[in-house]
Amino acid sequence: MDTLAKRLLDGSRRALARALTLIENDTENSQTILRELFPHTGNAQIIGMTGAPGTGKSSLVNALAQAYRQRGKTVAIIAVDPTSPFSGGAILGDRIRMRDLAGDKGIFIRSMATRGSLGGLSRKTRDAIRVLDAAGFDVILVETVGAGQSEVDIVRTAQTTLVIEAPGLGDDVQAIKAGILEIADILVVNKADRDGAQATERALKAMLDLGHPVDRTQILDHHGQMMALERSPEPIDNASEMWLTPVVRTVATSAQGIDELLETINSHQAHIRDETRFDQLEGQRIQIELLERLQGDIISRIMANLPTDMLSELTQRIQSRELDPQQAVELIIQSQELAQS
Amino acid sequence: MDTLAKRLLDGSRRALARALTLIENDTENSQTILRELFPHTGNAQIIGMTGAPGTGKSSLVNALAQAYRQRGKTVAIIAVDPTSPFSGGAILGDRIRMRDLAGDKGIFIRSMATRGSLGGLSRKTRDAIRVLDAAGFDVILVETVGAGQSEVDIVRTAQTTLVIEAPGLGDDVQAIKAGILEIADILVVNKADRDGAQATERALKAMLDLGHPVDRTQILDHHGQMMALERSPEPIDNASEMWLTPVVRTVATSAQGIDELLETINSHQAHIRDETRFDQLEGQRIQIELLERLQGDIISRIMANLPTDMLSELTQRIQSRELDPQQAVELIIQSQELAQS
Repeated sequence: MDTLAKRLLDGSRRALARALTLIENDTENSQTILRELFPHTGNAQIIGMTGAPGTGKSSLVNALAQAYRQRGKTVAIIAVDPTSPFSGGAILGDRIRMRDLAGDKGIFIRSMATRGSLGGLSRKTRDAIRVLDAAGFDVILVETVGAGQSEVDIVRTAQTTLVIEAPGLGDDVQAIKAGILEIADILVVNKADRDGAQATERALKAMLDLGHPVDRTQILDHHGQMMALERSPEPIDNASEMWLTPVVRTVATSAQGIDELLETINSHQAHIRDETRFDQLEGQRIQIELLERLQGDIISRIMANLPTDMLSELTQRIQSRELDPQQAVELIIQSQELAQS
Repeated sequence: MDTLAKRLLDGSRRALARALTLIENDTENSQTILRELFPHTGNAQIIGMTGAPGTGKSSLVNALAQAYRQRGKTVAIIAVDPTSPFSGGAILGDRIRMRDLAGDKGIFIRSMATRGSLGGLSRKTRDAIRVLDAAGFDVILVETVGAGQSEVDIVRTAQTTLVIEAPGLGDDVQAIKAGILEIADILVVNKADRDGAQATERALKAMLDLGHPVDRTQILDHHGQMMALERSPEPIDNASEMWLTPVVRTVATSAQGIDELLETINSHQAHIRDETRFDQLEGQRIQIELLERLQGDIISRIMANLPTDMLSELTQRIQSRELDPQQAVELIIQSQELAQS
């Protein structure tokens, strides 16, 4: 066994930090290490936390981590920052949180930015979660900023997804909620001591009532390639077993409502670990991951095989409107098939 | 020629709406129509507009569209809503804007949501832009909500990217700005009549001063598969030709600053259309598009060829920790190579 993997399993924090760096930089030996760690995964609770700017998400992550520590659980935090592809936004986040959590060996904080190529972030996040899982953390909190694709990625990696809202965040917020509500296993109204907290809670509950109880397997299905490819597993269709998204009020800065939130997370974990549900959800997450990895690997192979200048020649023919992009893609695929036969 | 394409080129709005629906639903004949329209593209100014919730982005899109109309330009607006994968958030946006813009035949508004699979949104957005370009619109405004991958997608499709900020949007905003600033060709401080507008402008300018003048070709490069694959074209390295991101203050609701913004956009368009720069930027956008399309097409082919049950068998072996995901991907690739030889 690789000595790094061995040291990590033996509890070395330095080995853990090093393994995460290898994953982030996508080095070749990161695959070897992941292979060796993989049999040791599957024990952690993986909690995704997402919300718009201004909801106090980072404080809530902090408060929740401390609550888990008080109950004797070890906690790893991954702060994924899809808004900062260029520079150190995520690193800044670390420093702020460090003030409260530093010095405790039962806690580990790591940030990941979107350096690198398309779709690389969700792959790296999944791999980082596995490394932390193998390292023995009881709870892994995966935090992401903002709205959009990143939330969908979270629902693909986390077992329990928290969507964080706050009172009075402006005009566009309502529109965002409509989309984001449906990925939430638990809705949190943070900053609940502010004016308008009750109105926000009421609005969220009203929107939840408008929707149907959401079956997470269908959401994964809806978003993954699964649906497009018509290869989806059977959905769970027993409505009585469905999870009804609760709304929890918190004031993270004074730890109000954090105990209740933690209990609600535990209820959700108990719910998903029931019967065949857990295997089915994990199976869907794995299938989506396989397709994403396959895409990445295959494009790399094709690019390696592509005749020099073919890409720039095709680009020029598109720019002169001689070819359209789809025709060019078909020419590339044909050239690959000829090369193989 | 397909009659729908012909009617669209003849100016039929109904044909245009129908063509966009075909693209959104990814029907087979959408490729035929795009092929026929493609030689008629390349004339529109494509302006991307993005910003966090609460910045008044939609009002600004509205005000800018009206300013273009006053100058006799025809305008199409595509509102891309990556936060609403499930339901009609984008449609709601249409209705709100319609009140100001309805009844004018020189304007066309369309929203697109993220229904469907991975990466499908940027493909569909590009195709929708081409359809509107072929339909003869002078200006195409591509609006997107929020933070994250969606902005990167905009920089890939638009010629000029506006990032919209507003005074006093809360704690997390500063962190977001760090990442988002670097995709902006023009920064807009909207709601500039509010307290703190000067402070926001000063902060943005200070952050711009900290950074280097940004060469858009390098940004495209940095985000695309290009970099990962080490096939990037030469960057433009003549610093004197670089665009220095200006900051423009507006109050969209009372049309303040809109004329100045429009002139700034025109300056940027003149800048990018200078010499070889335009071809180089367009060439890079096309190369990124080719790689994205290639990925989508190839994964569909593989899934169609894959032996029934292989995916679920591999998933089960991963769930029992017998295989790791990367090993499974390698088995799939091997099965494809055997099938072809």
